[in-house]
Amino acid sequence: MRLAQLSETSGVSTATIKYYLREGLLEPGDRVTATQMDYGAGHVQRLRLIRALLEVGGLSIAAVRNVLAVTEGADVRLKDLEQAAQEPLSTRASLQRTEVASDAAVSEILALAERWGWAVSPDSPAIATAAEALETLRRLGQTGVANQIDEYARSAEIAAATDVKAAHCDGGFKGTEALIVGNVLGDLLLASLRRIAQIHRLREGQHTGSCCSEAADRTDAGQA
Amino acid sequence: MRLAQLSETSGVSTATIKYYLREGLLEPGDRVTATQMDYGAGHVQRLRLIRALLEVGGLSIAAVRNVLAVTEGADVRLKDLEQAAQEPLSTRASLQRTEVASDAAVSEILALAERWGWAVSPDSPAIATAAEALETLRRLGQTGVANQIDEYARSAEIAAATDVKAAHCDGGFKGTEALIVGNVLGDLLLASLRRIAQIHRLREGQHTGSCCSEAADRTDAGQA
Repeated sequence: MRLAQLSETSGVSTATIKYYLREGLLEPGDRVTATQMDYGAGHVQRLRLIRALLEVGGLSIAAVRNVLAVTEGADVRLKDLEQAAQEPLSTRASLQRTEVASDAAVSEILALAERWGWAVSPDSPAIATAAEALETLRRLGQTGVANQIDEYARSAEIAAATDVKAAHCDGGFKGTEALIVGNVLGDLLLASLRRIAQIHRLREGQHTGSCCSEAADRTDAGQA
Repeated sequence: MRLAQLSETSGVSTATIKYYLREGLLEPGDRVTATQMDYGAGHVQRLRLIRALLEVGGLSIAAVRNVLAVTEGADVRLKDLEQAAQEPLSTRASLQRTEVASDAAVSEILALAERWGWAVSPDSPAIATAAEALETLRRLGQTGVANQIDEYARSAEIAAATDVKAAHCDGGFKGTEALIVGNVLGDLLLASLRRIAQIHRLREGQHTGSCCSEAADRTDAGQA
């Protein structure tokens, strides 16, 4: 199809499509004449993905480019996947970053990972981000989260198991894309569900109980 | 203390402090002469909070202002709290938003909330955000997450219970600030822990099993 039809099918203006082409987010079509290109169903799907990452995920153009780069090759290395999965985090958090987490905070996260049996490289960017968030909460005098970090780990473990299963179920070569997009949109989904559950608990006054200095007891997360 | 000393104590430049004063993020000090103001320990703590939300949380100045506005009053209404808790989500997601979630997706999230016993207003912004994330995943052909949304709800339930408990433990009038800051930094903490657990599972090849069309079986989140 021609550019005008690609625009009509995808609902993205021709000016925006040209912008994505210039920015390298979208592969050029096949050249049919000196001035005309031919686009296919792959371009429509790719446009859908770009719009989702930009509009719903709130990523920058640069972050989308980095995330998409990984889903290109058939032979995706785990290292690339780790990097891309981290991308939306680092983009969001490092905009004005001037500080890094202390060794103590990093050690604490590594110890947490060991308790949960998560074999992960100590220099993984996700370790640094978790350590920085933890340290910042402490610096602000908010020790409640720090004291219950294993509960957050339990929440993360359930989400990650589901993420990886979902990516597998979405099947084959699409698995990588599924995992990366799932991370971007999944952050949003999880964060909003967490707020829904919070609001309910606040409304019900379910914020009592003693907990403050010891590890939290197992939360009753039973489903009706 | 004078501005110069506030800058030294907080590690924030005088130019930046003046910017926060102009933007209304920081309350003016007490006037001592026509040109000099006096600042106190509250200003140091507030600067620490602003920097955390901006640098680590990645929020915009406008989002920080909205979030902080709620933590001001002694008499915080639940409605304000709901709005502020949502703020970092809406700011991030609505930058270029052109679409809203369909009624079907909203109904699906409301049904999920009902299954989990979360009493929440149907027009809560968190409902709309969750519905939009879900719908976008489906539009991209990623049905894995949608099919296992109760597992994400389970993860969110654990996080929310911990959030509210932690905010309570951080005590009294600081509880609101704790919850809001905990949401901003907690999103980051949870997202990075989730990636750490994912990386481990990918490395171990723990992405097998049949699941794709039915509700997921209970994940083993047992802690070592």
